[in-house]
Amino acid sequence: MGQDLVLYGYWRSSAAYRVRIALNLKGLPYESKAVHLVNQGGEQHLPDFQALNPQELVPCLIDDGRVFTQSMAIMEYLDETHPAPPLLPADPAGRARVRALSQVVACDVHPLGNLRVLQHLTSQFGADDAAKGVWSRHWIGLGLQSLEAMLAGNVATGRFCHGDAPSMADACLVPQVYNAVRWKLPMEDFPTICRIVDACQSLEAFQRAVPEAQPDAPATQG
Amino acid sequence: MGQDLVLYGYWRSSAAYRVRIALNLKGLPYESKAVHLVNQGGEQHLPDFQALNPQELVPCLIDDGRVFTQSMAIMEYLDETHPAPPLLPADPAGRARVRALSQVVACDVHPLGNLRVLQHLTSQFGADDAAKGVWSRHWIGLGLQSLEAMLAGNVATGRFCHGDAPSMADACLVPQVYNAVRWKLPMEDFPTICRIVDACQSLEAFQRAVPEAQPDAPATQG
Repeated sequence: MGQDLVLYGYWRSSAAYRVRIALNLKGLPYESKAVHLVNQGGEQHLPDFQALNPQELVPCLIDDGRVFTQSMAIMEYLDETHPAPPLLPADPAGRARVRALSQVVACDVHPLGNLRVLQHLTSQFGADDAAKGVWSRHWIGLGLQSLEAMLAGNVATGRFCHGDAPSMADACLVPQVYNAVRWKLPMEDFPTICRIVDACQSLEAFQRAVPEAQPDAPATQG
Repeated sequence: MGQDLVLYGYWRSSAAYRVRIALNLKGLPYESKAVHLVNQGGEQHLPDFQALNPQELVPCLIDDGRVFTQSMAIMEYLDETHPAPPLLPADPAGRARVRALSQVVACDVHPLGNLRVLQHLTSQFGADDAAKGVWSRHWIGLGLQSLEAMLAGNVATGRFCHGDAPSMADACLVPQVYNAVRWKLPMEDFPTICRIVDACQSLEAFQRAVPEAQPDAPATQG
């Protein structure tokens, strides 16, 4: 099955980055197909991709001809079809904690700074790049502040977000911190998050998933 | 265990509404504690609640003294600890579909129209009520358009979002449609969604969860 996996993504998409980490943690090989989110008015809006995902968003995973969307749903699917190593702990309370940490990022932070939202802030409110930066730093800062409290104040936190093995929560956290750095958010208030991200970045699964290592990343980034 | 369940929510919170539906579908009794999102500058920001949930958001479920946050994580937890009737199908591909439908709402629609986001549109961009309406209808419309395509074009859709029994996807869809109606979004382009919501609303579990039926709902709504 692994050989048939195809991931439609974009090098800098935070949600695609999560799925790349999960695939790498599972040791699953996949074919990478780039959907450029800006070129041609956004290749995600072209009919061929729209037929795969009516949401016109990446990532989109094809497994043996079946189409899967939404990064957390994809990671849960990979965890159910390829259980080892697990992306979620075994106990229901632990699973709920990892899912909640993931959802702080995937529901309450990332959607607010998504490309389409920033574009819409410009079209509806005339937001320029500076205003988009203020907006993004506000929401990322608020989210990381919550995450820092949830992680620093909990004995279940270990070398990673939950215990000493990487989970779905780490696969969500690392791309969000990549975004925070891109928006020049000061990180010194988030020592636990920084420590965990450092631990993740020491792993090959995370290293191979970074945006700059993707085939569609431009040779030089601005 | 059921008798020890306490749900911190707010009558009109879409995310709390999801969890109420899930608890009712499972037949689990719970004590309802209201966190007024506007009174006192937002009771979710008071120290007592902040200690429960550093995100300062509802819902928050207490099960036998343990704290659970994030509505989808809570629903998955309830499904793992009280498996019947299930909120997710048995097969991994079906589970991925229900989760993806849920996440279209919970990640890509609802977070953009949340109270705190609308308040921030005013503070950063001076958005008035009309502009907030335009913003909300844009994102809800886009989300429902995707959901309609995902539901109408798939043989797995039945009387409900997935087959003929309500799932987590229906628990996410119904509160979002409640919001759409509140923002006066025309619904005639979404016949499959409307049909499914009607089917849900015929069930007592959904009826008891509606905002207006909650103890903290005001006697007359504006």
